Formats: sequence, structure tokens, C-alpha cells
Amino acid sequence: MADTITTVATLKDAMRRFVAERDWEQFHSPKNLVMGLAVESAELMEHFLWVENLASRQVVHDATKLGEVADEIADVACYLLALSNSLGIDLSDAIVGKLEKNARKYPVEKCKGRYRVEG
Amino acid sequence: MADTITTVATLKDAMRRFVAERDWEQFHSPKNLVMGLAVESAELMEHFLWVENLASRQVVHDATKLGEVADEIADVACYLLALSNSLGIDLSDAIVGKLEKNARKYPVEKCKGRYRVEG
Amino acid sequence: MADTITTVATLKDAMRRFVAERDWEQFHSPKNLVMGLAVESAELMEHFLWVENLASRQVVHDATKLGEVADEIADVACYLLALSNSLGIDLSDAIVGKLEKNARKYPVEKCKGRYRVEG
Amino acid sequence: MADTITTVATLKDAMRRFVAERDWEQFHSPKNLVMGLAVESAELMEHFLWVENLASRQVVHDATKLGEVADEIADVACYLLALSNSLGIDLSDAIVGKLEKNARKYPVEKCKGRYRVEG
Repeated sequence: MADTITTVATLKDAMRRFVAERDWEQFHSPKNLVMGLAVESAELMEHFLWVENLASRQVVHDATKLGEVADEIADVACYLLALSNSLGIDLSDAIVGKLEKNARKYPVEKCKGRYRVEG
Repeated sequence: MADTITTVATLKDAMRRFVAERDWEQFHSPKNLVMGLAVESAELMEHFLWVENLASRQVVHDATKLGEVADEIADVACYLLALSNSLGIDLSDAIVGKLEKNARKYPVEKCKGRYRVEG
Repeated sequence: MADTITTVATLKDAMRRFVAERDWEQFHSPKNLVMGLAVESAELMEHFLWVENLASRQVVHDATKLGEVADEIADVACYLLALSNSLGIDLSDAIVGKLEKNARKYPVEKCKGRYRVEG
Repeated sequence: MADTITTVATLKDAMRRFVAERDWEQFHSPKNLVMGLAVESAELMEHFLWVENLASRQVVHDATKLGEVADEIADVACYLLALSNSLGIDLSDAIVGKLEKNARKYPVEKCKGRYRVEG
């Protein structure tokens, strides 16, 4: 349950050290990092390419597959951390701010049980 | 500097509440969530489509653009949190574990200043 | 039924003229074009984000939606044509060659009715 | 120079036969096919992840690399053909129609040498 005690800054610092030790800041332009993020997102997506929605939920009962998926999720997260580091973005502020915007865009009374805003 | 005091679990909980209030768990299959993640990654990427690597670094000096980019980064992060919730994955553990794997895959002495492992 | 009489070269030429008239070859590096291709693929994907596989087949009965999807498909195709122009690749040769490789990789007797090679 | 004599319909037919021989129409819902298309686009993008725009143009002088890239381009094209087959879309009509729309959206006098429409 590391998530309950790990701050976002701790993860950003771990990523920053990893990059600095390898002198990789020179490759970490925003353009390159968003490409890398999109590449990793697609690798994650490939795990669920041919299955039905319902079947995709079964991955939680398959420890091997779930581990592979967690690894791909971590790859996406690492690019997100590197990008936030590169741009000096506070990820928590950005997420909380976006959830507030989305709460206004998708009001509960119009969206409950629907994936689109109705009338 | 919210990142220094915000745990990953806090962000996961905020996302979980947002989804539960709208009764959206029914749409949040892993298959749908990874598609959404890839769609948002591409929207983020679009901001850096035609610029050079060097020019893409200048976004830090353009507050308006940086805000738009932070919003897209938050969208990607929200899908990552929703996916971790849906699959019961501890994101911090996954990230730390992946950084350890990558440290072995990309040893400092072979990768310093290079984006590929050399001989 | 334009597909029955239109060669790939005709489409490549139309794309080449569009780019040349705007003096856009300078932006059409392979790196930029593959990013654009991925962005357009994601826009196409967004049309099918929250629906079930079965429901996604119903788009053929919705002329408006089908038109929107055809437009997105065309966007992807345009980037593919621009990329082939930029790299001097014969698309037909590449496709036929890849289908032959895939026929060996996915032999009928092992793949019929399965999306993975079995045993 | 197969592109000069190969119609789009010929390529669509080759793809249709490949799918039919394997009884794969059942997996070829639009939702699955657009996911596959996005996955292949990302694999293509990965080839140009860390390089500069200018350097990415050099791939035309590296026969091995160019062959790998052509293979990935063909993968994207195959999904595009399968999707057009699945939806009954005339690809040539869609492309020509989209180029006409884009010609109006990006008039030569406002776009020449610029990747955005100017005032």
C-alpha cells in the first residue's frame, strides 16, 4: 500500500535522479517526452486489443498478466513524471484543477450512468 | 507545491469519488480506459506536433500554453489513476519497481549521455 | 466506387501537390509525420471510445456518424501518403510484402477463428 | 513502382481475403480495428522517438532501417484497409473529399510556408 504514504514529489524526485544519473535531460524535450508517452500508452493498449470490454476486466484475476499491465502502466507514469519535471508542472495541482473543471463539464445530475452529457 | 504533500492515494481517491458520483464504473473497463488514455496522450502530443525539439522546451516561458499543456497532462494522469483504481494496482510500487528494472536495463556506465545501450 | 479505378500513385500525387502548393515539405520530416499520423489515429479512435465492440459495428447504419468516421480515416490515410512520399516508399509493394510475411506468421491452420497463433 | 498500377480496390481485396481465410471478421469490429491502427501507428512512431527532425530525414539513406519503417507503414495501411472494408468506405473518395476540405481550411495564400493559418 505504498500509495498511501508516497507523495507525488517523491516519485518525481526518483524519476529526476534516474534521468540525471544518465545525463538524459538533453533528450528530454517536451516533444520527445510526449512521443514516448504516446508510445507507452499504445503498448499498454495492445494488452487489451482483441478482448471484449467485459473480458478485459478479468485481468485482475490473472497475476502474471496483471504484473505485465502494471509494468506498462508504470512506463506511462514515468513519462508523465519526467514531463512534469521537464516543464516544472505541479501534477497534483493540475489533476485537482482538472477534476474541478470536469465536475462542471459533467454535472452529476446530467451524467449519472451516462458517458455523455444529456440535454 | 502540492506535490510535496499529496500522496498518490489521495489523488486515486479523488478520482474514485468523481467516477462513483457519476456511476461510471460500468464504462471503466480496462479496455475502455486504456483507449481513453491513448486518446488523451495524443491530444497532449498534438501541442508539440510541428515544432522542433528545441522550440518545444520554450513552452515553459509561455504561461497560457503551459496551462493548456498542464490540463492535457492532467487528463492523461486521470485515466492512469482510474485504471489503477479499476485494476487495484499500487502505482507507487509499480513505478519504483519499474525504475529498478530500468536501472538494470540501462546501466549508467553504458548509457550516460546516450539514449541507447552501447556495446 | 472510386477505389476500383484509383491507383495508389494517383492519391500520392494528389497529396504531394497539396503539400508542395503550401511549401510544407520543410515541416514534413518523418518524425513530424509519424506524430501527425498517431494524432489522427487517436482522433479516429475517440469515435469508438465508450461503445461495446458489437455496438461499434452499428456505425454503418448511421450516415452522419459514418461520414465523420470516413473523414478521420481520410486524415490518417493522408499522413500515410505524405509519409510514403517523404520516404520514397512504394506503398503497394510494402502492403503486399507485409501480407505475405503475415501469412507465414499467422498460418491459416493455426489461426482460423483465433486472434492468436495456437500451439 | 507498383503504386502506379495498383488500385486501392486491389489492396482492399487482398486484405479482405487475408481476413476471410482466417475467419477473423468476428474480431474486426471498428472498435478493435481503430485500436489496432493506433497501436501500429505508435510502433511506427517509436522508430523516430529520440531523433531530431533533421536526423529523421536520414532514414532514406539507411536501407535496413527504411525496410523496417516500410514494414510498420504497411501494418498501419493494412488496418486502414481492413477498417474501410469493415465499414464499406470508399477510401479514394474519402481522401479526395478530405483534400478538398483541407484546401478550403488551409488556403494557399494564408498557409504558404506556415504550418498554421495566419490572420
